[in-house]
Amino acid sequence: MDFSSFPKKVKVVEVGARDGLQNEPNVLAAQTKAQFIKLLSEAGLRSIEVCSFVREDKIPQMANAEEVYQEVKKIKHANFSCLVPNMKGFEKALELGVKEIAVFTSTSDSFNQRNTNSSVSKSFEIIEPVIQEALKNNIKVRGYVSTAFGCPYEGSIAPQKVLEVSSKLLELGCYEISLGDTIGVATPLLVNSTLELLKKNLELQRIALHFHDTRGMALSNVLVGLSHGISVFDSSAGGLGGCPYARGATGNLATEDLIYLLHSLNIETGVSLERLAMASRYIHEALGKKSTSKFLQSYLSSKDIS
Amino acid sequence: MDFSSFPKKVKVVEVGARDGLQNEPNVLAAQTKAQFIKLLSEAGLRSIEVCSFVREDKIPQMANAEEVYQEVKKIKHANFSCLVPNMKGFEKALELGVKEIAVFTSTSDSFNQRNTNSSVSKSFEIIEPVIQEALKNNIKVRGYVSTAFGCPYEGSIAPQKVLEVSSKLLELGCYEISLGDTIGVATPLLVNSTLELLKKNLELQRIALHFHDTRGMALSNVLVGLSHGISVFDSSAGGLGGCPYARGATGNLATEDLIYLLHSLNIETGVSLERLAMASRYIHEALGKKSTSKFLQSYLSSKDIS
Repeated sequence: MDFSSFPKKVKVVEVGARDGLQNEPNVLAAQTKAQFIKLLSEAGLRSIEVCSFVREDKIPQMANAEEVYQEVKKIKHANFSCLVPNMKGFEKALELGVKEIAVFTSTSDSFNQRNTNSSVSKSFEIIEPVIQEALKNNIKVRGYVSTAFGCPYEGSIAPQKVLEVSSKLLELGCYEISLGDTIGVATPLLVNSTLELLKKNLELQRIALHFHDTRGMALSNVLVGLSHGISVFDSSAGGLGGCPYARGATGNLATEDLIYLLHSLNIETGVSLERLAMASRYIHEALGKKSTSKFLQSYLSSKDIS
Repeated sequence: MDFSSFPKKVKVVEVGARDGLQNEPNVLAAQTKAQFIKLLSEAGLRSIEVCSFVREDKIPQMANAEEVYQEVKKIKHANFSCLVPNMKGFEKALELGVKEIAVFTSTSDSFNQRNTNSSVSKSFEIIEPVIQEALKNNIKVRGYVSTAFGCPYEGSIAPQKVLEVSSKLLELGCYEISLGDTIGVATPLLVNSTLELLKKNLELQRIALHFHDTRGMALSNVLVGLSHGISVFDSSAGGLGGCPYARGATGNLATEDLIYLLHSLNIETGVSLERLAMASRYIHEALGKKSTSKFLQSYLSSKDIS
């Protein structure tokens, strides 16, 4: 295999505290989440998504988002972002002094309709003013494209659709687009053909990849991304977060598994695997559940602290 | 990523019934194992390692190996092999009419000493007459090289050592050498450099790869193997088998995860994932444990039969 096109450094965007926790029925105290985020930053993670400003009745786990942000904004040396679904959420973010927000849409009208009660084009009407206001206030905006490699309702997704949605988000002013494999159906060939298409039409250094390990393909997909020089990957400490479309199945790629792969490839991340393991252990204990990360399971058992 | 050097077809060697079960404390009846092996063959697996003829006091799970073989030899359309540690084991295999055996050694004296009470060179003194007798009797011989990518006692292993041991096994008459990542420490760069060295010195089509998914790297390593044109991989249904060197950690790569990756790459295996899932479900129920395969977990939960 030719590793020469692989990046020397990778930015890992930690999404455990938001994407990882959002479907957990066991609502954690703001203090617990803040402590988790502190441990993540002490492990060397510099880009951490900490909460979302969404409706409490929709996502009870995020009810204490403001309190969490108030706590973590004191932590130094890390960038904290908050997911914002609309102008109302943005106003909360602005009030709290958030420096980076994330907005989201998807490639699929059916998914978008069920997820946010709006079509993809309608979602842009909601997002556009949010991005404008954010940029006016010097707040960075990251864009998420959900169902970038497949939709639970529409099935396969044409890479052309991913290109269209990503281009639009970039035009609107997002500094980076994260392509989400929401249901964990991405495979190496699909990731490859999607990136081949994107490469011809936009700057690939603006693209991040957000894989789910639902069918065990996440790291294989990461390798394909690396071969295209992709240098930003999203992941979740200990693999926090399930797959709402397949109960009992794994969701987010575990940050530990990602970092272990990257370090084995001599790619710099700035993250300490040992410290990260402690952060994951802390939050999994708080939730009363076991991590799905193979690296973490192996690491903890080797230390006799499983 | 360049997929052009990937093989069009892959032979999957299923090791669940032997390698997967050998450390399971819950000893299964021969009938149960035979039924498992029947389901595996019905799923389309054509190379199945079914048992080992080892000392009962050492590996109680294999005490009924003869009975298992008697049962499975009736099954058509699949090749069944048996692991044989020495001449005594070979004699049993010969008596039973076994058509293929597997012999084993390792790259590490420390490991070999603890595993079989002999150094690597001493192990060749035991293996050599076994291979000779097998070939005389038209029995095919496969060679395993344990600790090919790292040893629990000696740490890292020089690829040169893997080449030496593999070459010797090939010279003695093994038709194929399976390089085992016994403790799950193989990484893409190491697999790559090992295969680069082997390629210069022996026929790579004689090499099979046997990865453990202890740290989640198995499929990434498979991708590297495929990029070198490797077309034989060992795996274990549902990821059966733990890691005796890290309790609580995952062992063998799950056949489901391997097949799902291969099929996604348009590589033919002849295996039905649905039928394979049923075989894995059967044996995990018999053992009273949950599969570690991410694909299988996701598949079963999508069918509401987790």
